[in-house]
Amino acid sequence: MQSIHQHPRLPRRVTLLATLSLLILAAAAAVAADSLLIKEQGSFFVGGRTIFTDALTGSATGFLGSGINSGNITVDQMYVQYQIPEGADSHAPVVMVHGCCLSSKSYETTPDGRMGWNEYFLRKHRAVYLPDQVSRARSGFDATIYNEIKLGKRPPSDMPEIRTATSDIAWLGFRFGPSVGKAFPDEQFPVEAMEEFGKQVIPDLNGGLPTVNPTWTNLSGLAIKLKGAVLMGHSESGFFPEQAALINPKDIKALITIESLCNAMSPEQISKLAKIPTLVVFGDHITDVPNSPINWKERFESCGKFVEQVNAAGGDATMMHLPKYGQFGNSHMLMQDKNSNQVADLILKWIDEHVENKKPTKSASN
Amino acid sequence: MQSIHQHPRLPRRVTLLATLSLLILAAAAAVAADSLLIKEQGSFFVGGRTIFTDALTGSATGFLGSGINSGNITVDQMYVQYQIPEGADSHAPVVMVHGCCLSSKSYETTPDGRMGWNEYFLRKHRAVYLPDQVSRARSGFDATIYNEIKLGKRPPSDMPEIRTATSDIAWLGFRFGPSVGKAFPDEQFPVEAMEEFGKQVIPDLNGGLPTVNPTWTNLSGLAIKLKGAVLMGHSESGFFPEQAALINPKDIKALITIESLCNAMSPEQISKLAKIPTLVVFGDHITDVPNSPINWKERFESCGKFVEQVNAAGGDATMMHLPKYGQFGNSHMLMQDKNSNQVADLILKWIDEHVENKKPTKSASN
Repeated sequence: MQSIHQHPRLPRRVTLLATLSLLILAAAAAVAADSLLIKEQGSFFVGGRTIFTDALTGSATGFLGSGINSGNITVDQMYVQYQIPEGADSHAPVVMVHGCCLSSKSYETTPDGRMGWNEYFLRKHRAVYLPDQVSRARSGFDATIYNEIKLGKRPPSDMPEIRTATSDIAWLGFRFGPSVGKAFPDEQFPVEAMEEFGKQVIPDLNGGLPTVNPTWTNLSGLAIKLKGAVLMGHSESGFFPEQAALINPKDIKALITIESLCNAMSPEQISKLAKIPTLVVFGDHITDVPNSPINWKERFESCGKFVEQVNAAGGDATMMHLPKYGQFGNSHMLMQDKNSNQVADLILKWIDEHVENKKPTKSASN
Repeated sequence: MQSIHQHPRLPRRVTLLATLSLLILAAAAAVAADSLLIKEQGSFFVGGRTIFTDALTGSATGFLGSGINSGNITVDQMYVQYQIPEGADSHAPVVMVHGCCLSSKSYETTPDGRMGWNEYFLRKHRAVYLPDQVSRARSGFDATIYNEIKLGKRPPSDMPEIRTATSDIAWLGFRFGPSVGKAFPDEQFPVEAMEEFGKQVIPDLNGGLPTVNPTWTNLSGLAIKLKGAVLMGHSESGFFPEQAALINPKDIKALITIESLCNAMSPEQISKLAKIPTLVVFGDHITDVPNSPINWKERFESCGKFVEQVNAAGGDATMMHLPKYGQFGNSHMLMQDKNSNQVADLILKWIDEHVENKKPTKSASN
């Protein structure tokens, strides 16, 4: 009898435990499938210096008519927003820098409302850091020169160029199609959301920055602050990771250059950069837009040469031309393209293999 | 014997279940204590319109020397970043708008590195929406007039005023203390992090906006898009919630005006606004800074009058002067003050009582 009594009890207990375990697993899976588990998030600034301005406002009566129109302000600071998801301890943080006439919105929700790379990388357990370039968006800019012109203290010709882009320039320059309004048959950019994309385009005041762009110095500072980071740049900022590494390579774990011009480098510079794994990414249709205001062939070739030079110097540089990796139809804005997650997967795989598993760098003969 | 055998087994099963339950509770508590559970997050734009610009850049050779210097661009759009935490279904979303010479960074990590209101409200299960004002930060601005001046198409006197603030203006105007460098004995602003605060201060281009500020219209549009929202403004934007409600009160669940001038309103306007619960918040030391570039007595009194008018018209308006609510030493930047969580709790309690529990509005005689 005891055994009869006991046998039904054992399964009952087992069933109860199994049910509980299943409930826990289901709850965990539900969290994993839908919600983001964020261990820490926030924002901070890197860099910045205090200057004296003699044109705090463009009004002769000063700030709110108080008569105060000079004093100390902060310039060259770089705003950085970040999130650290659960499970990020085993991966290097990824810093994503935006391009011309854009902010780090580039990496958030896509124009057609899909998940951006910032969230996709978080879901792959990477801490993500999104800076706004110095002189753009939440990083602010030094308005002194504009106010001095307004107040008649300087001629208008002293004004730095402010750069914006039209939707037509974006269509052709960003390779959405061969002519304005016409998309490539395999185009991956969500051209139906062109109007939403236009809202991301904001004035670019980099023309007023010094020769050594403070964003480069601040990116180096950010890598050091994070005790190791992968630096990723796009378009205007595509070569910023390399520029940051030339200032100070400390704690820069990888350089990712997306759709950019690669500057000509001296052998000394190449030798310095060759110590850091490097990835260059380009989309499709490089030479397929006859009237593009941007010469993509020249940029692609400049980066091809750079990759060769780095590898010749014993480095580990990869040219990821997406069509050669099975991804077709990608535009310049590949982080917003319809296959953005697949492109991200290729980059994540490269990080896993070349940065985090510390695969030995190729020898010069490879 | 059986009973002896069985009794120890029952406790053992109970112990196992109890241990499992405790583990689950502990895991849940650990998540609640440390991590944020985010159901959805991202960013989008509200509003925006297409205009033709004849000065796309300040360069005679146009965009990247392409000769293109005119075309269609988007202006007046408002960038909004958002997070929806678990458990937000039972609360109205909260929209937090920043003040002059600042971005929505105001509501993120404080200058001394504590949790900002955005995260605190998330942890209280409120969806939080952070717009950058039109013509500021990630919302961008219309650069046409600046480039036209640079190109000699307009005189410099046409330039809108760009406004910035010095650290001295902030010290006195934001009531960090009675004189520059000296804090009030009970000062709540983290003055030791003044340098970090200075990095948040960025140029304000609102001087170039039309009389009906597009941010007002976009805030109304945002409330409608969210199917209900609490609108909160601070300082320059303190009365924006009311301005948005005057454009269209639909789906605006509450108006929260923090440390602002309250504009004089007609009886018709008061009557329209009186339909929406209204909270006005002011910090401490209103009249204690002799050389403040901002007249706080005037602003405090303008809002006191506004609150009276709304209540006289049968509305439900509260003047929350923090010292009367047990919070002393608060500055103008009360969302960054050391007691920011306590101030937030007072606002959350007000929302619970006046908005979400739908307490009947006071009659005019009360």
